Amino acid sequence: MEIRKTLFSGLVLICFWSTNAQNNAKFVNTFIGTDGTGHTFPGPSMPFGMVQPGPDNNIAGWNHTSGYQYKDTLLLGFSQTRFSGTGIGEMGNILLLPFHEKKSKLKNSYHKNSEKASVGYYSLLKKDDIRVELSCSERVAFHKYTYPSKNAKLLVDFQHGFQFLNDSLVLESDIIIENNSTISGYCKTKGWVTKKYFFTINFQTPFVASKELPKEKKQNAPKYILDFNLSKNRILQLKIALSTVSVTGAKQNLKSEIPHWSFEKIKQNAEKVWNDYLNRIDIEAPQKQKEIFYTSLYHLLLQPSNIADVDGNYRGADDKIALASNKAYYSTLSIWDIYRGAFPLLQIIAPEKIDGIVNTLLLHHKAAGFLPIWTAWGQDNYCMIGNHAIPMILSAYTNGFDGFDKDEALKAMIETSTKSHINSDWELYNQYGYYPFDKLDNEAVSRTLESGYDDWCVAQMAENLNNKINQVTFQKRANYYKNLFDTETKLFRGKETNDNWRTPFDPLTATSPMNNPGDYTEANAWQYFWTPAQYDIDGMKNLLGGKKEFTKKLNDFFTIESLNPNKFLGQEAMIGQYAHGNEPSHHIVYLYAFSETPKFGQKYIHKIINEFHNNTPDGMIGNDDCGQMSAWYILSTLGFYPVNPANGEFVLGAPQVKKATLHLKNNKTFTIEPTNFSNDNIYQENAQLNKTSLSKPFITYSEIMYGGILNFEMTSK
Amino acid sequence: MEIRKTLFSGLVLICFWSTNAQNNAKFVNTFIGTDGTGHTFPGPSMPFGMVQPGPDNNIAGWNHTSGYQYKDTLLLGFSQTRFSGTGIGEMGNILLLPFHEKKSKLKNSYHKNSEKASVGYYSLLKKDDIRVELSCSERVAFHKYTYPSKNAKLLVDFQHGFQFLNDSLVLESDIIIENNSTISGYCKTKGWVTKKYFFTINFQTPFVASKELPKEKKQNAPKYILDFNLSKNRILQLKIALSTVSVTGAKQNLKSEIPHWSFEKIKQNAEKVWNDYLNRIDIEAPQKQKEIFYTSLYHLLLQPSNIADVDGNYRGADDKIALASNKAYYSTLSIWDIYRGAFPLLQIIAPEKIDGIVNTLLLHHKAAGFLPIWTAWGQDNYCMIGNHAIPMILSAYTNGFDGFDKDEALKAMIETSTKSHINSDWELYNQYGYYPFDKLDNEAVSRTLESGYDDWCVAQMAENLNNKINQVTFQKRANYYKNLFDTETKLFRGKETNDNWRTPFDPLTATSPMNNPGDYTEANAWQYFWTPAQYDIDGMKNLLGGKKEFTKKLNDFFTIESLNPNKFLGQEAMIGQYAHGNEPSHHIVYLYAFSETPKFGQKYIHKIINEFHNNTPDGMIGNDDCGQMSAWYILSTLGFYPVNPANGEFVLGAPQVKKATLHLKNNKTFTIEPTNFSNDNIYQENAQLNKTSLSKPFITYSEIMYGGILNFEMTSK
Repeated sequence: MEIRKTLFSGLVLICFWSTNAQNNAKFVNTFIGTDGTGHTFPGPSMPFGMVQPGPDNNIAGWNHTSGYQYKDTLLLGFSQTRFSGTGIGEMGNILLLPFHEKKSKLKNSYHKNSEKASVGYYSLLKKDDIRVELSCSERVAFHKYTYPSKNAKLLVDFQHGFQFLNDSLVLESDIIIENNSTISGYCKTKGWVTKKYFFTINFQTPFVASKELPKEKKQNAPKYILDFNLSKNRILQLKIALSTVSVTGAKQNLKSEIPHWSFEKIKQNAEKVWNDYLNRIDIEAPQKQKEIFYTSLYHLLLQPSNIADVDGNYRGADDKIALASNKAYYSTLSIWDIYRGAFPLLQIIAPEKIDGIVNTLLLHHKAAGFLPIWTAWGQDNYCMIGNHAIPMILSAYTNGFDGFDKDEALKAMIETSTKSHINSDWELYNQYGYYPFDKLDNEAVSRTLESGYDDWCVAQMAENLNNKINQVTFQKRANYYKNLFDTETKLFRGKETNDNWRTPFDPLTATSPMNNPGDYTEANAWQYFWTPAQYDIDGMKNLLGGKKEFTKKLNDFFTIESLNPNKFLGQEAMIGQYAHGNEPSHHIVYLYAFSETPKFGQKYIHKIINEFHNNTPDGMIGNDDCGQMSAWYILSTLGFYPVNPANGEFVLGAPQVKKATLHLKNNKTFTIEPTNFSNDNIYQENAQLNKTSLSKPFITYSEIMYGGILNFEMTSK
Repeated sequence: MEIRKTLFSGLVLICFWSTNAQNNAKFVNTFIGTDGTGHTFPGPSMPFGMVQPGPDNNIAGWNHTSGYQYKDTLLLGFSQTRFSGTGIGEMGNILLLPFHEKKSKLKNSYHKNSEKASVGYYSLLKKDDIRVELSCSERVAFHKYTYPSKNAKLLVDFQHGFQFLNDSLVLESDIIIENNSTISGYCKTKGWVTKKYFFTINFQTPFVASKELPKEKKQNAPKYILDFNLSKNRILQLKIALSTVSVTGAKQNLKSEIPHWSFEKIKQNAEKVWNDYLNRIDIEAPQKQKEIFYTSLYHLLLQPSNIADVDGNYRGADDKIALASNKAYYSTLSIWDIYRGAFPLLQIIAPEKIDGIVNTLLLHHKAAGFLPIWTAWGQDNYCMIGNHAIPMILSAYTNGFDGFDKDEALKAMIETSTKSHINSDWELYNQYGYYPFDKLDNEAVSRTLESGYDDWCVAQMAENLNNKINQVTFQKRANYYKNLFDTETKLFRGKETNDNWRTPFDPLTATSPMNNPGDYTEANAWQYFWTPAQYDIDGMKNLLGGKKEFTKKLNDFFTIESLNPNKFLGQEAMIGQYAHGNEPSHHIVYLYAFSETPKFGQKYIHKIINEFHNNTPDGMIGNDDCGQMSAWYILSTLGFYPVNPANGEFVLGAPQVKKATLHLKNNKTFTIEPTNFSNDNIYQENAQLNKTSLSKPFITYSEIMYGGILNFEMTSK
């Protein structure tokens, strides 16, 4: 790649890319995860992009959080924004639907087998014979419609949006038809978050008439039908630029990113940019595995979304406009998911983004008073539990990122951990040394355990910055988890203020606030048992009575069968109690590395990789959750995964690929090259980093980024 | 008037108005109060109008809260919004300044003697020979510039605004140049309040070039220079429509109010609408008195401003858009001032607006949790003390207005009086039975006394609605004022939590949070002594020892000389301690009606009318305060004023006019017709309502609205 850069440039480079260059983008199958619970989408988006134009089949329900389900045949139209793999719907703004009068009965149906999608491209043929093609840049969606005749109609719907609890609304809007080629304005919407988006829509062919449809009840935004007299080619093209800041910002984004009308150019640019990221890892693997792997990488890099304008301005959590220090402000931060594997992996693959992400967390803290929990379009929806922006920041600090103010970072961590806010009642937590379930609506055990991890991170950060007092305070809090250990059931169990355990106690049934409220978060007592192992494996072993009991507990975990697993709580892709479908389980299989039988873990990793991931639309079991599921797949394929996402360590599993080469952004190369790799040889022995045997069951971030070769001897025993 | 309406209509009517019809508008001199502390402005505005285009001489300082001072010669340009008579600056948005290159050094100066203003019209000649003429409808400003040549320039400045504490800013803006005839967008500004205004500007002649000037530091809005090639007549006309809701709303307002380009039509409409109000009172008086009287009526009716769009939508205190029940939503509610005389007077003159105003108060409560204190552009700035929306509501209820939910009204009153909020700490107030000055930053005495009046009003409203518990609770609170009565000084005096009086105690010096902090609000202990007399004259007499001592106290009040009166605290237009320049004094002269010597009060009323009010730019001493000073003048001219603004009673003074006829909106007529009226006969005797002698020193709102004749016998003794 380095040599090519010196030889070619500009257009020559683009041609080269599309013919001979490494083109991992071609392995991406954007339909993976679109059938079932993956909740991904097939439409185009740039890496970390702000817009995701694509088909919407439905606006409501758990199945349609991204607007799309592979098996649906109804087509509502094409909206411009969406999330990948979430369990709750939001976005889906500005719906466009091209149609024409002659076949208006067919305007909501399409030929399923006409769907085509690749990186930066989506296309389908509607049953009324309109071909729809979509592409985009970071902030601008590009639509190309080929009508069967010159008389064209287009629905432009500002009321449309994905539903959160079926009560999402446009609170206010201001839509300005500037002229027959330009519609601009903004909408303020209430859904999972309350947000404002500004836009400008540019039509290549001016419309000749516009008609506003009657407003739907409670909706404070219009719908229009536009009429066009197209030229001979019967093509209507349009661009939609978005901004969190202003129409002026949206226009600037449009002008800066897509000043022309060439669909091909936009598509090629998307492929080029995607390949710049996707080519950072090369793997030697069969086509099927490559498709799963690079689609996972694609899904990983869809977010967080940079919602700043091209000039770096953004609208923050306080609804104020500010200039982002890194000229980027990241949203779609599904932190409870991504702090685990996705963010550590991102630090390897896209280290140039990390300071910007951490600074976003700190800017959010400054604006809102607390570090974010789950941000959508820059606004916190407080979804899930814990304050895991804390481990994200510690992780970046531990791994040597220094483009942020570390004192401010510690201050943000401490304030977030001491000032009570939504879902964090520190008075209660500190008074009892745990969240007593009679004082909390639900999730009392999960909250205690997850806060313990955040506490450990604050203690570490305080230690790093020589802040002894807070180190001691938070180290103490990090041990609160032990207060919920029930020596009888040997699980973490709900406890009342008066010290009574939750009775009856059902350790195999998952609970969740929205669906069977109880002491755990989208998981059961068995699954949450392993949470403190993220940072205190020794403590866990002590609780159980030693390494042997720790091993036995793991074995039990992977063999006890689930009763009535609830897939809405991620209780799918099960091995015993291990639920690959949801995040609380994701690190558990790697705990075998600290057991008496590491190879048991390697066996399960092999099984998960091969049985729960596929290159088909239904090839993803469980929500992708903004790339966390994908991150697990990528890391596990490479042979390691961060049990503790913030200590810089990647615990060894077993590589699932013959060879993997990481072309690091710092120009170093890190290669994973197992010896005797085969379908049967699923166990690794004698792991060597640069030909030196590893004395510990992990490698560090620094070791990876330093470059080198990680070797394993693979065996079937 | 009724007959005329059947005979004439449309243009015929307009012609008639301008020739033969009653035309009290011609007596309005909009320059009265513009020189000195009146803080009024000469530019056009409609009654209760949303826009007030006019000249700005300066943006900062106490003298320029309306943007204008008569003696200034610097001209910054012409902004679209302002308040009349306030002590703090806000608004002044969208500044336009026509100029041309040849004489660009003269662009900020004008010929002082060229200024012309009348109801609905303002004009001046700039020194660069550009004639500026302004008019407006309720929501749309209309500018007409006549340039000396065809090449015209125009500054359009979105950064401009009147300064509050010199730190006002545009926080965000979105300005869209739709085409060469239209600029639209919005600004969010931080000043006395944080507010959002939306606008559209329409140019009759398209501009041929636009240039954005470099942004000023911290200002998030642009300034443009526009170039025009005018036609032979060298006239540039433009319209600016505003909205609190949206650009769409502003465009709708523009289309609905001024669909044409005829300056004359707009001006004539303004005169017609103003006459509809101004002709509701006819007085027989010399020209000078008529000018003061009708200008006072004009100033009274400038606000509150209806900030709803023509369709009734408005942006409320919660930044949410809603539909106003009366299709009107009123702002510029300077409640601490206007609850006294202006609102009771408005109930006589413009009863059709009262339900809308009360409903605005209730809508504000619903949105903000509390009744408003001082709203600017719908947002509360919490200026001054008390919660005197409470007496406003009781006043409307007492006077028979029923177009609002009375139970909701009582609920709003009680919530406002029991839930602590800015400037109202009910825990403190209830704990001690007064505001102890050691627990409050300042104004402890004034707050106690003014809350007492609100408490009395809540008790009255509770009694009206048969709510015994609250009646008792609030009647008890209404007596708290007695806890601050110092029997030694016989004044209400600051008291600490430990019951110690404020020492040293300086009863003659006014205090104010911004200017000499202390226990009183823009007044001294002598002036605040009379506050509880608004509702408990008997209680006051008891405190002092009887009617005789009450009379003596009044005599002392009007004769003790002030020391260093501070005009910034309204300490001007003094008679002894009576400060006509500020509201706490306004009812005191009418307390003589309850004394042993009512005629002393009549003497002072005559003196105030004749010495503190004039038909000249400096003819107003003390801020007009959104019409309260004007209301005092009008009411006192008619011969009565509400000591208690909420009990429906207007206490008799002495009429200052030979005859006054109130053409009431209910088609009744109420005439004030003193016998033997002359310059020397300033005292009244034997007041008769419909030829029956009045047994009490007041008439009621109902009696006025029933119609009839109020007669006095005037005498010089």
